[in-house]
Amino acid sequence: MQSLDPKLKRYNKKLPYSYSFGIYPTIDLLRSHPELVMKVLLKEEGLSSDGISEIQDICKKNGIKVEINGKSIDKIAYKENTYALAIFSKYENILEKEADHVMLHHPRNLGNIGTVIRTMVAFGLRDLALVRPAGDVFDPKVVRSSMGGLFQIRFKYFDDLNDYIELYPAQHFYPFMLEGGKDIRNIAIQRPYSLIFGNEGAGLDSTFVQRGTPVFIPQTPDVDSLNLSVAAGVAMWEFAQISGRLPRG
Amino acid sequence: MQSLDPKLKRYNKKLPYSYSFGIYPTIDLLRSHPELVMKVLLKEEGLSSDGISEIQDICKKNGIKVEINGKSIDKIAYKENTYALAIFSKYENILEKEADHVMLHHPRNLGNIGTVIRTMVAFGLRDLALVRPAGDVFDPKVVRSSMGGLFQIRFKYFDDLNDYIELYPAQHFYPFMLEGGKDIRNIAIQRPYSLIFGNEGAGLDSTFVQRGTPVFIPQTPDVDSLNLSVAAGVAMWEFAQISGRLPRG
Repeated sequence: MQSLDPKLKRYNKKLPYSYSFGIYPTIDLLRSHPELVMKVLLKEEGLSSDGISEIQDICKKNGIKVEINGKSIDKIAYKENTYALAIFSKYENILEKEADHVMLHHPRNLGNIGTVIRTMVAFGLRDLALVRPAGDVFDPKVVRSSMGGLFQIRFKYFDDLNDYIELYPAQHFYPFMLEGGKDIRNIAIQRPYSLIFGNEGAGLDSTFVQRGTPVFIPQTPDVDSLNLSVAAGVAMWEFAQISGRLPRG
Repeated sequence: MQSLDPKLKRYNKKLPYSYSFGIYPTIDLLRSHPELVMKVLLKEEGLSSDGISEIQDICKKNGIKVEINGKSIDKIAYKENTYALAIFSKYENILEKEADHVMLHHPRNLGNIGTVIRTMVAFGLRDLALVRPAGDVFDPKVVRSSMGGLFQIRFKYFDDLNDYIELYPAQHFYPFMLEGGKDIRNIAIQRPYSLIFGNEGAGLDSTFVQRGTPVFIPQTPDVDSLNLSVAAGVAMWEFAQISGRLPRG
């Protein structure tokens, strides 16, 4: 691992590893995937911060090297007050068959991808399909906006929608689109479902009307559309109502 | 207006005017508040783009000066391909009494403020209270993420929550907070309502439990919270169900 240091550089998608920045994202990573963590870096100034001792405990238990190295952190972090980071190996998942899925079709905005992942975990969804071209889930911007959620889900990239359909034939498709869709409040929900969201600019093209049950979220005519993360949030919320996944208060 | 040019600079909150960047935000502004627009700048290369002729028509009808001036656009725009911008005077609103409101308490993130505004318009809410310290709604980042929605709502800043309460005594408060709240699916909704959301980091402090009906959106224990824009989106969606504001499909 020592030899990694001279090469440490700002993230780019060709690297075989990525970084979690900050104390809490690093704790989330260590809790759910300690086996992926190659090394943890801490900053001298942050050693008394909340959470640092938990990082040190988990690292000790799992034989993960911890280094005090503010200089390396400053070299690759995006924010000034980054007191901890973990270097972790990228990985791939397979999605659970016959579980409810979310699909992002050609998603571009990294903040939206992360926010959708955060919402998935909040509403009990654990499987994410991404159809290329698609943003890189390992980009630190996704890791950060997912608030640790990335490490709690399964995700898989597909070059083509048909590859997904072939692998997961039991899924019922619910493509979200304003044109040709049914009111989300009036549809029968069949499980396992795949909620499909198009990209920020173009949405889903009209061929999706033929796939499963197209759905829309009613809205006034005064804006073009909802933000992708918000639309996905409302959709996941509505679909979660029949799943029994959400605790009742 | 000519004399404005030498002073045109990147937006900062002390300026008495702000900018809408891009063709569609500029159209939204011109449609809803032509009286605020001091001048429109267009780029030579964009003159054949969709929407430019609508900009020119509205400006002609309202006596708004249009200038082809790519150099000034490049000086103050954030993105390279900005083909149009409008310079508009800042303004203040009063909120409608006895209407349903949204309140952002100490909001910081400009993208979230804009996204909440976009969602408000989509779900038929038109009144936004912001309790300081709060981000600047005229920042171009808010204008952009609101997707023109800013020009369709009323908003008002308050230095103190009590100033709001005094001005709008008929509002029923629904502060959104995970601790001490009631399940959003089990509450009786009284109108006019004020949906209150805390800031991205800290949420609402515990004194809000005493104000009106505290509410939470059920979620799994696996993430700390929902993203602010997503939580506000789900909340507005649920509350809109009793308002009759959303068209039924």
